[in-house]
Amino acid sequence: MIQEYINENKERMLEELFSLIRIPSVSAQPDKHRPDMMRCAQRWQELLTAAGVDRTEIMPTAGNPIVYAEKMVNPSAKTILVYGHYDVMPAEPFELWKSQPFEPEVRDGHIWARGADDDKGQSFIQAKAFEYIVKHDLLRHNVKFILEGEEEIGSPSLSAFCEEHKDLLKCDVILVSDTSMLAADLPSLTTGLRGLAYWQIEVTGPNHDLHSGHFGGAVANPINVLCKLIADVTGKDGKITIPGFYDNVEEVPENERRMVEQIPFDEEKYKQSLGIDELFGEEGYNTIERNGFRPCFDVCGIWGGYTGEGSKTVIPSKAYAKLSCRLVPHQNHNEIGQLVVDYFKRVAPKTVKVDIQSLHGGEGYVCPIDMPAYKAAERGFEKAFGRRPLPVRRGGSIPIISTFERILGVKTVLMGFGLESNAIHSPNENMPLKLIWKGIDAVVNFHLEYDKD
Amino acid sequence: MIQEYINENKERMLEELFSLIRIPSVSAQPDKHRPDMMRCAQRWQELLTAAGVDRTEIMPTAGNPIVYAEKMVNPSAKTILVYGHYDVMPAEPFELWKSQPFEPEVRDGHIWARGADDDKGQSFIQAKAFEYIVKHDLLRHNVKFILEGEEEIGSPSLSAFCEEHKDLLKCDVILVSDTSMLAADLPSLTTGLRGLAYWQIEVTGPNHDLHSGHFGGAVANPINVLCKLIADVTGKDGKITIPGFYDNVEEVPENERRMVEQIPFDEEKYKQSLGIDELFGEEGYNTIERNGFRPCFDVCGIWGGYTGEGSKTVIPSKAYAKLSCRLVPHQNHNEIGQLVVDYFKRVAPKTVKVDIQSLHGGEGYVCPIDMPAYKAAERGFEKAFGRRPLPVRRGGSIPIISTFERILGVKTVLMGFGLESNAIHSPNENMPLKLIWKGIDAVVNFHLEYDKD
Repeated sequence: MIQEYINENKERMLEELFSLIRIPSVSAQPDKHRPDMMRCAQRWQELLTAAGVDRTEIMPTAGNPIVYAEKMVNPSAKTILVYGHYDVMPAEPFELWKSQPFEPEVRDGHIWARGADDDKGQSFIQAKAFEYIVKHDLLRHNVKFILEGEEEIGSPSLSAFCEEHKDLLKCDVILVSDTSMLAADLPSLTTGLRGLAYWQIEVTGPNHDLHSGHFGGAVANPINVLCKLIADVTGKDGKITIPGFYDNVEEVPENERRMVEQIPFDEEKYKQSLGIDELFGEEGYNTIERNGFRPCFDVCGIWGGYTGEGSKTVIPSKAYAKLSCRLVPHQNHNEIGQLVVDYFKRVAPKTVKVDIQSLHGGEGYVCPIDMPAYKAAERGFEKAFGRRPLPVRRGGSIPIISTFERILGVKTVLMGFGLESNAIHSPNENMPLKLIWKGIDAVVNFHLEYDKD
Repeated sequence: MIQEYINENKERMLEELFSLIRIPSVSAQPDKHRPDMMRCAQRWQELLTAAGVDRTEIMPTAGNPIVYAEKMVNPSAKTILVYGHYDVMPAEPFELWKSQPFEPEVRDGHIWARGADDDKGQSFIQAKAFEYIVKHDLLRHNVKFILEGEEEIGSPSLSAFCEEHKDLLKCDVILVSDTSMLAADLPSLTTGLRGLAYWQIEVTGPNHDLHSGHFGGAVANPINVLCKLIADVTGKDGKITIPGFYDNVEEVPENERRMVEQIPFDEEKYKQSLGIDELFGEEGYNTIERNGFRPCFDVCGIWGGYTGEGSKTVIPSKAYAKLSCRLVPHQNHNEIGQLVVDYFKRVAPKTVKVDIQSLHGGEGYVCPIDMPAYKAAERGFEKAFGRRPLPVRRGGSIPIISTFERILGVKTVLMGFGLESNAIHSPNENMPLKLIWKGIDAVVNFHLEYDKD
């Protein structure tokens, strides 16, 4: 019956999703895309209204606006708050895309575009499942939606928004589709997320670019220094060397280690899909533990000096990098943020000046697998995919999930339908069409199952 | 008398120099500037003709053409070959220039523009001294000019050109104005140059950019790896750690160490002019030794990952750097080039692929201070500046100088009139006007003194 509805409405639904994708709502580039943020929020408002909400509002924040919508069927019934985000990552480098990032194309059964998965495609699944439930008069609980426009830059305005609108956002559980499954035929529910801390570092050497012949060997080169500072953060054993970094890190519990062993994982296939010969990570942990349970340090960007064609012999005045750490439960992102800032200031040689700023961060999250909403999600997945989903801790960060818990006092169920191969945050982001349809099926069943408890 | 001529012709001369500077002859950016190379060569041809040569030709090479010109007064007289280059370094980053790099401006007694010193300004000094000598009928030896258009990219076509035109380039000594003095009131003659080797390195991790949350900690990040590779090249003592790197390096001779001690050098002033608190370099050597007598390793550029506004959480597929070494006499740039390529391939971890290419290089050079042309240059400087110039080894590289010696069998005298504060290769390159006029004076006197031997 759900499949029938999907088949009858496929074309309209795809056109609706494409209308969202075509708006380049890149939150990290406000100079270029500020008007697109409002356009995208308005388009969501139209789509949610058409889907059946009875109230919707575009609510201002200090940053990009938040789309709020609700359908209240019964004040004494339970309330589910659906969270998603309408902003997307930058699409650079454009030249690596096979088709235009903001002009969705269907090829080989996938939608190819920025946001096809993260998070326009996935939020769309929530909206269309809601539409089905409403149109078939199956809704027995209240549903609220909030769609924010700053997730990809760390949700700087959302916690203030939650504090200010606690009553409006009152709910029993939060439902989010913004994570991925182990494989298209191996559904899973995300039971943990890593936290994040992110910095920009600027190393200044001489007060202007120098001729590397006249000064080379006598003056510290800020690129060389920056490389040394970065290199020293990771030990040979793959551990982060910054004193105090692991102080609050919880060791992987034995029962979770045993659950990890249940997860089918083919290391050869994994390496092959990434085109690498050898994996690298912290000694004493396997890949799933490394990217689900353990923190890490990655440079997300680096630049300095001459980067054009050919050769220029220069000692640049400045070198820069964007640094990030994924954090795990009990690591406070503010504390780690400061720890790393203090560390770099302490170890920086006197031959240069080091300026480092925290850009954003957020806490990790753990979802209990015995709560009713989790169990409803499990059954929803099982009905749509014919297979019980595995509980898995994932390495990504949705900092706002721990903020919701802190401010609104509710847990979140992460019903994600992405795949690692969807290349979110990368060129050629994509989403298999069949996962959109199965996702709608699973979320519809979640709503139905949730009422049974 | 020379000053009088200069005073009478100042405005015309400046306009001539500016006409050269206005042509953005950036050899490192052929896609953008190929037509400018020919325009600049033609402008030089016009100016040399007006200055009094009796033959001039724009000669093709595999790369940018070479401007040849000559005035032969007597087949049995000695011949001086003046070498210069009409290409310039890229002007990026443009935003750091106080005035347009290719629109020369006179402020505070300096010309501000790319090429004001290196090497349009300095080659112009040679042309105008020649003009004076010819116009006043003082020329007693033959003069040849070659101006190339690829010096800033390592003169890839010039050695083939020299091999092919040995007869045309036959001469007794080569004269070059492309170096700097210790200070405006402290003339010096460059008696040594460092060699150069230059590479581009590409580190490839995963076959596409990855979400740093899903993969962070489990997959080697090519930026982190590149930083480690670079950091490991320099030891705590400032020495290069690559095995075999110092094998052919000549220790600073004791008599040269004593000459270095004669050079007035104010370390505090040096640091202040660069805006740095501490110098860095190889232990056991002072600053002048470090940048004149010792090799070094500098990263001239680095890039990879997200370098735009805000934060993007990505493990990039690739990271790049431009690496360079200044070399000293007896270090062969081809050997060092290969040594470094082999080193990086050997130490690269198996978690990534490392590709490294030699871009260009050249040998160092030493000029004997007892040869007649050197002595004539010494007296020329003394007449113009009222002070005997100090012999100094400098850290820059003009690889072609050692090539001239190898192919044409002649030594070069380096009569340079630049200053370190002229910011060559940097934003806000400049040249004090008075050094242009004093330079012409010194070169005129060189020609006159050279005939006396």
